[in-house]
Amino acid sequence: MENVVVKILKEPKLKNPILVEGLPGIGLVGKLAADHMLDELKAKKFIEIYSPYLPPQVFIQDDGTIRLVNMEFHYWRGKKSDLILLTGEFQGITPDSQYQLSEKILDIAERFNVSKIFTLGGLGTGDITTKPRVFGAVTKKELIGELEGSGIVFKGGGAIFGASGLLLGLGLLRGIHGACLMGETHGQIIDAKSAEAVLRVLTRVLGIEIDMTKLAEKAKETEKQIGKVSRVISEQKKALKRQQEFIDETPSYIR
Amino acid sequence: MENVVVKILKEPKLKNPILVEGLPGIGLVGKLAADHMLDELKAKKFIEIYSPYLPPQVFIQDDGTIRLVNMEFHYWRGKKSDLILLTGEFQGITPDSQYQLSEKILDIAERFNVSKIFTLGGLGTGDITTKPRVFGAVTKKELIGELEGSGIVFKGGGAIFGASGLLLGLGLLRGIHGACLMGETHGQIIDAKSAEAVLRVLTRVLGIEIDMTKLAEKAKETEKQIGKVSRVISEQKKALKRQQEFIDETPSYIR
Amino acid sequence: MENVVVKILKEPKLKNPILVEGLPGIGLVGKLAADHMLDELKAKKFIEIYSPYLPPQVFIQDDGTIRLVNMEFHYWRGKKSDLILLTGEFQGITPDSQYQLSEKILDIAERFNVSKIFTLGGLGTGDITTKPRVFGAVTKKELIGELEGSGIVFKGGGAIFGASGLLLGLGLLRGIHGACLMGETHGQIIDAKSAEAVLRVLTRVLGIEIDMTKLAEKAKETEKQIGKVSRVISEQKKALKRQQEFIDETPSYIR
Amino acid sequence: MENVVVKILKEPKLKNPILVEGLPGIGLVGKLAADHMLDELKAKKFIEIYSPYLPPQVFIQDDGTIRLVNMEFHYWRGKKSDLILLTGEFQGITPDSQYQLSEKILDIAERFNVSKIFTLGGLGTGDITTKPRVFGAVTKKELIGELEGSGIVFKGGGAIFGASGLLLGLGLLRGIHGACLMGETHGQIIDAKSAEAVLRVLTRVLGIEIDMTKLAEKAKETEKQIGKVSRVISEQKKALKRQQEFIDETPSYIR
Repeated sequence: MENVVVKILKEPKLKNPILVEGLPGIGLVGKLAADHMLDELKAKKFIEIYSPYLPPQVFIQDDGTIRLVNMEFHYWRGKKSDLILLTGEFQGITPDSQYQLSEKILDIAERFNVSKIFTLGGLGTGDITTKPRVFGAVTKKELIGELEGSGIVFKGGGAIFGASGLLLGLGLLRGIHGACLMGETHGQIIDAKSAEAVLRVLTRVLGIEIDMTKLAEKAKETEKQIGKVSRVISEQKKALKRQQEFIDETPSYIR
Repeated sequence: MENVVVKILKEPKLKNPILVEGLPGIGLVGKLAADHMLDELKAKKFIEIYSPYLPPQVFIQDDGTIRLVNMEFHYWRGKKSDLILLTGEFQGITPDSQYQLSEKILDIAERFNVSKIFTLGGLGTGDITTKPRVFGAVTKKELIGELEGSGIVFKGGGAIFGASGLLLGLGLLRGIHGACLMGETHGQIIDAKSAEAVLRVLTRVLGIEIDMTKLAEKAKETEKQIGKVSRVISEQKKALKRQQEFIDETPSYIR
Repeated sequence: MENVVVKILKEPKLKNPILVEGLPGIGLVGKLAADHMLDELKAKKFIEIYSPYLPPQVFIQDDGTIRLVNMEFHYWRGKKSDLILLTGEFQGITPDSQYQLSEKILDIAERFNVSKIFTLGGLGTGDITTKPRVFGAVTKKELIGELEGSGIVFKGGGAIFGASGLLLGLGLLRGIHGACLMGETHGQIIDAKSAEAVLRVLTRVLGIEIDMTKLAEKAKETEKQIGKVSRVISEQKKALKRQQEFIDETPSYIR
Repeated sequence: MENVVVKILKEPKLKNPILVEGLPGIGLVGKLAADHMLDELKAKKFIEIYSPYLPPQVFIQDDGTIRLVNMEFHYWRGKKSDLILLTGEFQGITPDSQYQLSEKILDIAERFNVSKIFTLGGLGTGDITTKPRVFGAVTKKELIGELEGSGIVFKGGGAIFGASGLLLGLGLLRGIHGACLMGETHGQIIDAKSAEAVLRVLTRVLGIEIDMTKLAEKAKETEKQIGKVSRVISEQKKALKRQQEFIDETPSYIR
């Protein structure tokens, strides 16, 4: 099996497309924002990615059918430029796989002539705030001017982990530019407010409109689902423990 | 060494074969069921798989000879369709290796024109039940109708880990269909009752008969053997500890 | 860099050579036995193996020069058959690397027409015994008869981890036969007595003689050296800890 | 993506160049020394290395732009011989990657005809000392004579981990020689004094002069920055924890 299997379902001609990444991370801020955008815009799926870099599991869907863990690309036709939304339940599970998946995503970005990348995430502060700010980081200084007008705060320092960082860092090596938008968030909670703040800023930058009514609702649902899944999985994990004692007999000195 | 070494001992012509997977997992339900099936049907071994994705160890058999850790395929000639049984002591030991082993198993399935896959496992609930139900998940909706008649319960939610999930998820990408049958089980015990429930349902679906008398017995034996092996291995592990302090000197900052 | 770099220093014509493996394991029994054999027989080094599967470190030798971690092959000319001794400070540090190193060692064994393999190790029991027995496991039954005469005890059950197991298990797949000799040992101590028991049995099987006088002495020295190295390394590890906090910033969700 | 991407910015003709490695390690001694040297000599960057062997992250710089984690080579034109300085924020994050990165660094060394390698590091003793000694280890005895004159202490024993060890050990296999200079240091602190001691010795050996005034200052700054980064990152890590419970659902038996 290839390290990253790209399954192209459709090959739409896209106009000056902008890639928006919303994979899971701090506060699930980026994921909530991108998933909501996808639903509201009724974006169309055109690419699926499967990979041994993702956890070896399938989800059982509500109708009893299974779905292999993956990442998905949806597109949406805008006025000035089209959008490509990248979503998924997981990031690559090893440092190396983070790089390899990001490179493959950038290959896809180049194939569809992506003009700019926005990666979405959360910035964990440990504090609860009613008016979360949105912090930014960019691949070139010119972008700061463009974005400050939309209320994005720039202050140096810190690091961006995973796809939100690598898509910009590796993109820069290829000459693709973009920005990371990070919603201020506590960190220990799934934060719909922060996701909304990120979306408000992003839509202003993109010149589009998105109804936020269902976002908080969806966040609650996500929390509930995760709770449900966690309980099931927690039982499964305990259940696996007994077997692990049998299965995991490889002594640690050879790991 | 190749990542997966497939040693084909015989190349039987199989009639419309159905693959049944019973590798170790929750409650050892799937393994117990498949191992019992193999014994009762007196299925014939025709393929061995060896792999650096499996633990680096050999078993010392009762006669003093060793056997390298592996997975095995047995076939059995049925009336309507033949069966292929996949068994082993381990699953792949890294997430990536789970994918690679499943892909190789699917290559074998395609080579022998497998028409359907049944993966067997346990669903850990934390409860002890006298009448374990059998839950199902499928690759396409049409299979639900076929299987519900045999007493399999379908309810969405949750995930399937390891080979039982991946053989279906990756199979689906190749157009091979199938179902996972999960016996309700506590999780902390080796569960012959749950394995029996799974087997009863599976044999009904397959239209074959299997004597269950020895299954409980075998489960006890398995428990005893594992106990014995565990004690031996536990001593070995303690014994390795002293050496680990010498051997594992690689400082953690470079791991 | 190749996964295993084999540096052949000399290419001696060997007569019916027998490979004896003594890499570190339980009680350092196998390593002590093979290292002593090497010294007493004044065997000649002819191959070095270097590998990224071994820890990334160099030793500072007594004269201030460094030596990269490796495995070494020495040969010795016997009457009936020559010997090849395989020694080293480490085994492969991942399960996969155990397989790959063992395969490379078997390639070398085939290149020099090795007729039989003896792997040496300890069997940890948790007990201290004054007269350690030597247990055996073989690749084919015929070898049991040959070896029982030399006082090796055969009883089934358990597993052999690492190179001592894999060289036999993978060797068997190539048609190379051999046995593992395991000295009874407590497990928590470096056990010169157990190593002596293994050597006494092995030399009887091989029809050679080795003076055991210096073995206990050497074991003490080994213990002392390890103690010294451990202290130094323990300081280094503590010292690295402060930096790890800086260096290991990769959040665990992407590991 | 290749395992190590070498981006050559300039290809200067270098005169008998000497490679000095100062990647992070014990007490950050080597890193502090090399970074200071780089600043004082105003060495010129000519190569960047990017790699999936480095952590998957980008730094947010003071001006709001991002920079992908990397290693950098700078050159400086000396009288007798030119210098190449190798610096970075990280070492390879797996044992294997340590080897692969070191090999690539040696490829670059050979390409520019490096005549000698000095690797810089700390030797953690657990003690605080006002006059840190500088210990040495070399690839060949002849170098000891050369270096003892400059006040470097040679005593056998111990090991050198990571790039500082491997560049010498793997270099030796290619016939490139060099020495590791280790400043005596407590280990739990960022040690500018030890870095100064190493630099004083190294500059004596190289016959160059470097102003040490700003070194202590820089060390304090480093400490402060690390503190700041650590705080930010610590929050991020806590923030990631909640998500990990969702994301890290892969049961441990398949890891």
